Amino acid sequence: MSDDRPSPSIAVHPDDDARLVDAVVAGGGATVPLESARALVWNSGSDTFPDQLPDGIEWVQLPAAGIEDWFTSGVIERNPNVHFTSAAGAFAPSVAEHAVALLLAGVRSLPQHLLATTWRQQELAPTVGTLRGATVAIVGAGGIGRAMIPMLAALGAHVVAVNRSGCPVPGAVHTYPVSQLADVWAEVHHVIIGAPATPATKHLVGKEELAKLKPTSWVINIARGSLIDTDALVEALTDGTIGGVGLDVTEPEPLPDGHPLWSLPNAIVTPHDSNPPQHRLTAYAERVRDNVARFAAGEELIASVDPVSGY
Amino acid sequence: MSDDRPSPSIAVHPDDDARLVDAVVAGGGATVPLESARALVWNSGSDTFPDQLPDGIEWVQLPAAGIEDWFTSGVIERNPNVHFTSAAGAFAPSVAEHAVALLLAGVRSLPQHLLATTWRQQELAPTVGTLRGATVAIVGAGGIGRAMIPMLAALGAHVVAVNRSGCPVPGAVHTYPVSQLADVWAEVHHVIIGAPATPATKHLVGKEELAKLKPTSWVINIARGSLIDTDALVEALTDGTIGGVGLDVTEPEPLPDGHPLWSLPNAIVTPHDSNPPQHRLTAYAERVRDNVARFAAGEELIASVDPVSGY
Repeated sequence: MSDDRPSPSIAVHPDDDARLVDAVVAGGGATVPLESARALVWNSGSDTFPDQLPDGIEWVQLPAAGIEDWFTSGVIERNPNVHFTSAAGAFAPSVAEHAVALLLAGVRSLPQHLLATTWRQQELAPTVGTLRGATVAIVGAGGIGRAMIPMLAALGAHVVAVNRSGCPVPGAVHTYPVSQLADVWAEVHHVIIGAPATPATKHLVGKEELAKLKPTSWVINIARGSLIDTDALVEALTDGTIGGVGLDVTEPEPLPDGHPLWSLPNAIVTPHDSNPPQHRLTAYAERVRDNVARFAAGEELIASVDPVSGY
Repeated sequence: MSDDRPSPSIAVHPDDDARLVDAVVAGGGATVPLESARALVWNSGSDTFPDQLPDGIEWVQLPAAGIEDWFTSGVIERNPNVHFTSAAGAFAPSVAEHAVALLLAGVRSLPQHLLATTWRQQELAPTVGTLRGATVAIVGAGGIGRAMIPMLAALGAHVVAVNRSGCPVPGAVHTYPVSQLADVWAEVHHVIIGAPATPATKHLVGKEELAKLKPTSWVINIARGSLIDTDALVEALTDGTIGGVGLDVTEPEPLPDGHPLWSLPNAIVTPHDSNPPQHRLTAYAERVRDNVARFAAGEELIASVDPVSGY
């Protein structure tokens, strides 16, 4: 080390995956057993998390972007003196790409095209829409939402962002505070839901909101199933209130067999695989490296968990 | 008019669509009957084109980007003293968006997801790929190909361009001359075909080229069906030589009922509707305005037809 700070001692658990160990070292840390560590890089679910952490642990890096499980399982509450960071934002590019893929497939009417087994140009061509010139609302413009903006802009869409503060999101043509969300639905062509799951965001999209959208509007949810009222959504899809839906998350989840969303032709369901394992570790390792470097330098960590707000 | 040039006299035929008339006026032209016109803005197919043009016609603007029909029907040959321009490039954004939609849907495995009627996360997640970090070859980087580059770049892909000259295409990480095309296939993850249909490009993609691609490679064709050897393609899709194909054009076209491409799960066929009528006139009107302005100013027109090369 070229500076005077010692390498922080960091445990990688429950496995010691080589890419995460490399990331710790690349960030300026030294990997040690849990008992002698100042920080823990966790690489599993909340169900296998230690009941009790050694007293020396100051910081725990969690591998998920959405960490409700760590709240409901009591892990956060059990360790009030530990600084938790989530991986919020680390998987943003893969999830953002998935959201754009769902929206673009829907808008260009690919699901209907895939059902065709004969050259139905006269019937299908009128169903092909475009993102060029369309206004797309990103509701919950956190890391994932912000990662979508350059993708959507390159496709010619105008992005409207909605966040808690209304502070302008770079690249968005307008940013609304969530207090004005009710005005957004009627103004936009399509909506991407990227907000965290909290009591305040439950059924953020319901019958009333869907009714304000257009018959050609696509709604994409890559956040959490609870943000959309599924029954209202099925009704809106069935009666043509909206154009279609792309869901990587559902309520209930997993979506049960026989659910109408499986057979509606204007619903694309992906089983919560917008950030599949084969993309995940690479992205998580990048975050570990960045946060270890910040920890070593005594800087603010990325994606600190707020025990009060719940994310 | 604020300058000294008179407004060029331009006929809009066979209809006099209001948006095209407006575009002529916006470009500084005046609309007149065909008999007294210096230029003709055509808004129909080659089959209804006049057998004989009035002597005064110097320039004809054709409404299509691919103009084989105007060659094979003899329209170009019959009028050797007329300067023809195609609409090549005018529809580039819509077709480019379609190509990116096909590629992204394929790479993210949306066709397989759409077939699912139960929550098959374990089975489907491993099939989800990403354009992030992938190398995409655009073979035939004309107007459409160039319009794709910023879209693909925003999704994190590296674009390799192939054109006749090898002159660097802005935004491409490398540009190959078509003479080195044989080296490109093994180097890239995915291929988008955007080259014009000429005798030289017939079956540009055949058994040998497909064999050099990867089992995860997607091949997209939004140009002309003749560029791909369909039988070789079906074989490559069936035996897993490549990952999948997105075709807006086919050979034969229309694709006949019962053709294997209709039922292969890794083939997305759209019936040549990447530039559907509802998007077309707006884009054509923009080109008419631009070329009328150039014609009025005595400047070089966009997309002049070369009677020798055939496009």
